[in-house]
Amino acid sequence: MKNYSIAKSRRIRSTPYTSRIEKQGVTAYTVYNHMLLPAAFGSIEDSCNHLKKEVQVWDVSAERQVEISGKDAAKLVQLMTCRDLSKSKIGRCYYCPIIDGNGNLVNDPVILKLAEDRWWISIADSDVIFFAKGLASGNNFEVQIFEPNVDIFAIQGPKSFSLMEKVFGKKITELKFFGFDYFDFKGVNHLIARSGWSKQGGFEVYVENTQSGLDLYDHLFEIGEEFNLKPGCPNLIERIESGLLSYGNDFDNNDNPFECGFDKYVNLDSEISFLGKEKLKKIKKDGIKRKLMGVLIETDKIHLTKSLNLKDDKGNFIGDLRSACYSPHFKKVIGIAMINEPYCKPSTAGLLEIGGNSLAVKVCDLPFI
Amino acid sequence: MKNYSIAKSRRIRSTPYTSRIEKQGVTAYTVYNHMLLPAAFGSIEDSCNHLKKEVQVWDVSAERQVEISGKDAAKLVQLMTCRDLSKSKIGRCYYCPIIDGNGNLVNDPVILKLAEDRWWISIADSDVIFFAKGLASGNNFEVQIFEPNVDIFAIQGPKSFSLMEKVFGKKITELKFFGFDYFDFKGVNHLIARSGWSKQGGFEVYVENTQSGLDLYDHLFEIGEEFNLKPGCPNLIERIESGLLSYGNDFDNNDNPFECGFDKYVNLDSEISFLGKEKLKKIKKDGIKRKLMGVLIETDKIHLTKSLNLKDDKGNFIGDLRSACYSPHFKKVIGIAMINEPYCKPSTAGLLEIGGNSLAVKVCDLPFI
Repeated sequence: MKNYSIAKSRRIRSTPYTSRIEKQGVTAYTVYNHMLLPAAFGSIEDSCNHLKKEVQVWDVSAERQVEISGKDAAKLVQLMTCRDLSKSKIGRCYYCPIIDGNGNLVNDPVILKLAEDRWWISIADSDVIFFAKGLASGNNFEVQIFEPNVDIFAIQGPKSFSLMEKVFGKKITELKFFGFDYFDFKGVNHLIARSGWSKQGGFEVYVENTQSGLDLYDHLFEIGEEFNLKPGCPNLIERIESGLLSYGNDFDNNDNPFECGFDKYVNLDSEISFLGKEKLKKIKKDGIKRKLMGVLIETDKIHLTKSLNLKDDKGNFIGDLRSACYSPHFKKVIGIAMINEPYCKPSTAGLLEIGGNSLAVKVCDLPFI
Repeated sequence: MKNYSIAKSRRIRSTPYTSRIEKQGVTAYTVYNHMLLPAAFGSIEDSCNHLKKEVQVWDVSAERQVEISGKDAAKLVQLMTCRDLSKSKIGRCYYCPIIDGNGNLVNDPVILKLAEDRWWISIADSDVIFFAKGLASGNNFEVQIFEPNVDIFAIQGPKSFSLMEKVFGKKITELKFFGFDYFDFKGVNHLIARSGWSKQGGFEVYVENTQSGLDLYDHLFEIGEEFNLKPGCPNLIERIESGLLSYGNDFDNNDNPFECGFDKYVNLDSEISFLGKEKLKKIKKDGIKRKLMGVLIETDKIHLTKSLNLKDDKGNFIGDLRSACYSPHFKKVIGIAMINEPYCKPSTAGLLEIGGNSLAVKVCDLPFI
C-alpha cells in the first residue's frame, strides 16, 4: 500500500493544535469538515491497545459546530431531526440523525442544548450549515446560523477520569454520560461534555477561548505522565469493534435511518414536525430491504479505500463492505457492510473477492464488542 | 516541510481514475467534495511549465454535479445565485456565485443548463446539495435534487485542441468557450464542455458512462504521445498566476461577492428573485471594506497551509494572505490576499512575517497575467 501525501492549504483548515500534534508524531491525516483530522500516530494497532488501557488526548477540532440561535432556533433544530427533542434539557447532548425530505440521512451529529434558544450541532462530515440556512430561509425562520469559533479536543480512555479529576476536581467525575457543564481552568470557563468517539469513556472540551485551550492541552501533557498519556485520534479499529458508525463511510445521503439501525432515534409517533416524517412512516410500514451489519472476514489484513461488493457462493450480490480493519482482538478482519435482505442476519456466509483472493465472510450483529 | 500521508477511506471517495493516476505517478492528493483530487505529480513547477506548452489530462471527478430537475428547477437554481439566468441558453455553462441569506458566498460553481427543467451545478468544495434541499423543502418546490453519476476529466493546455480534434473531429474545435455539446466516442455520447480550471484552454468531459469514460481516458494516452500528453491536475502556480479563485482558499462563507471581485455576476438591477438580494444591495450602497487582491512577496519559497496576517510598516493589520506559491514566471512568491480598505489598491507596501523573517509585500491587481 503506497502512501500519498496530503496537500495542505487554507481550504483544508489546520487547527489550533496542528503544530503541537506534528511535534508529537502524527503520521497521517484525513479531511473532515474541510479540516485536518489526525488519522494515525504510527501504528493504529499500538494506538488501539493504548487507548483501551490508558488515556489519550485527541485533536478533534474537525468536529465543527453549527450554532443555531434566536426565536425559532428550537423549531429549526427539530425540523432537521427525526429524534423528538421536545423534552430535551439544557446541559445535555443528544445523538440525532439529520434527515432530508426523502427520509435519507444528511449527518448524525451530537446536538447540545445550550439554552432554549441556543443550540450547537456538533457535526459529522457534511455541511449541515447550508442545509440549516436553506431551511431557515425557505421557512422564514428568525434564527442566526453560523460556525462559532469552537475547537474540540477529546480526552479518551479508561484513565481519562483520573486525569481530568486531577485538573478539575471531583465534580468532573460526576458528569453523567452525554451531560455537559462548565469547568474552570486558570480563570477561563470551558464547556466539557462526557462524550467522545470511542467506547473507552472520556470527555470532550469545546474550546472557545483558543489560548486557554492550548494552555489546557499543554497542561494535560505536563501532568499526564503518571497516567501514561499519549496523543491519539479516533481509532479505526476501536470504532469498528465498538460499532461506532461514520457518516460517509458506513452510511450517507443514499441511506435511511432504519437501514442504519437508528430506530430508537426515529420518533414517528410523536407530535413533532420534522423533514421526511411521512417518507419514514412509509419506509417503516413497507419494511427495509437492507441493513448495516457487522462482517467477519477470514484474513489478517485489509486497506479499504472504497466500497467492495460481497457475494454469496453462487456469485449473487449480497451487500457492500464500507469500513474494515484488522482487529487484534478477533484475530481477523472485521467490517461494517450494508447487507441486502434476506442475507442481513447473523451467520450468513459470503465471499469477498480482493487482490485475486476469495475470502470467507460471515455476517454478524453490531456492535462486535 | 514534512509530508504527511492521507488516510484513505470510503468517506474520502476514490474516482474511476484513481487506480490509473496512481500508476501514472500521482504523489499528493487533496480532498474536494469528499473525494480525492490529485494535487501533484512530482514537481508542480515542472507540471506548470508543461501545462503552459503542451497538454494534460486531469482527474477532476471531485468537481461533483448537483442535478436539479423538475417543474420548479429553474426557480430554485435562480434563487441560489445572484447572476441573472433568465436569458440563459441550453448548451451553455454559467459561472455563478451561490449566495446565502446574508449575502455571503456558499460556492462558486459552473452551472450547466441541460434543459429548461434540468440543470447541473458543477460545484466547488461545499455541499451545495444540502443548501438546495433545504431551500426546496422550505419553499415547497417540485424538484428532484441529487448527485448524478458524473465524473469529470479535463483536457487542458494549448495542445488540447489538436488532441481532441484527433478523437472527435473538427466539430469539437468549433465549440465556443463555456459552450457544451455531445460527442460520440465508439458509440457512446459524452457531454463535453470547452472549460476547465486553467487559463491554458481546453475541455471537460462530463462522463456518465463510466466504462466508456475509462476507454476514452486510455485512448487519449494511447494517441497522446505526439502531443507530449501527460497526466496532471489543477496547478497551484498556474491558477494563482491566472487569478482563478478557489472557494475555501481565497474566499468562503464569511465573504461576499463584491469583496471577491464578482461584481459582473451580481445582477441587482434585474427583476429576478434570489437569496440575499437586499443584503447585497445594501453592501453595494455602503461600499465594501476589503477586497481580494494579488500580492507579490520578495522570497523564493513558501508553503502556505493557513491564512497569514499582512501588516504595514507600523505593524497595523492590513489583510490576510490566503493562497501563495513561488512563481517561476515572476521569480518571486505570488499570492491572493483579502486586503482591507484603504490598503486594497495596487502598489501598497506591506510585510509578511514568516519563519522569523519579515518579507516585503506589494499589493497588485488580479489576475497577475
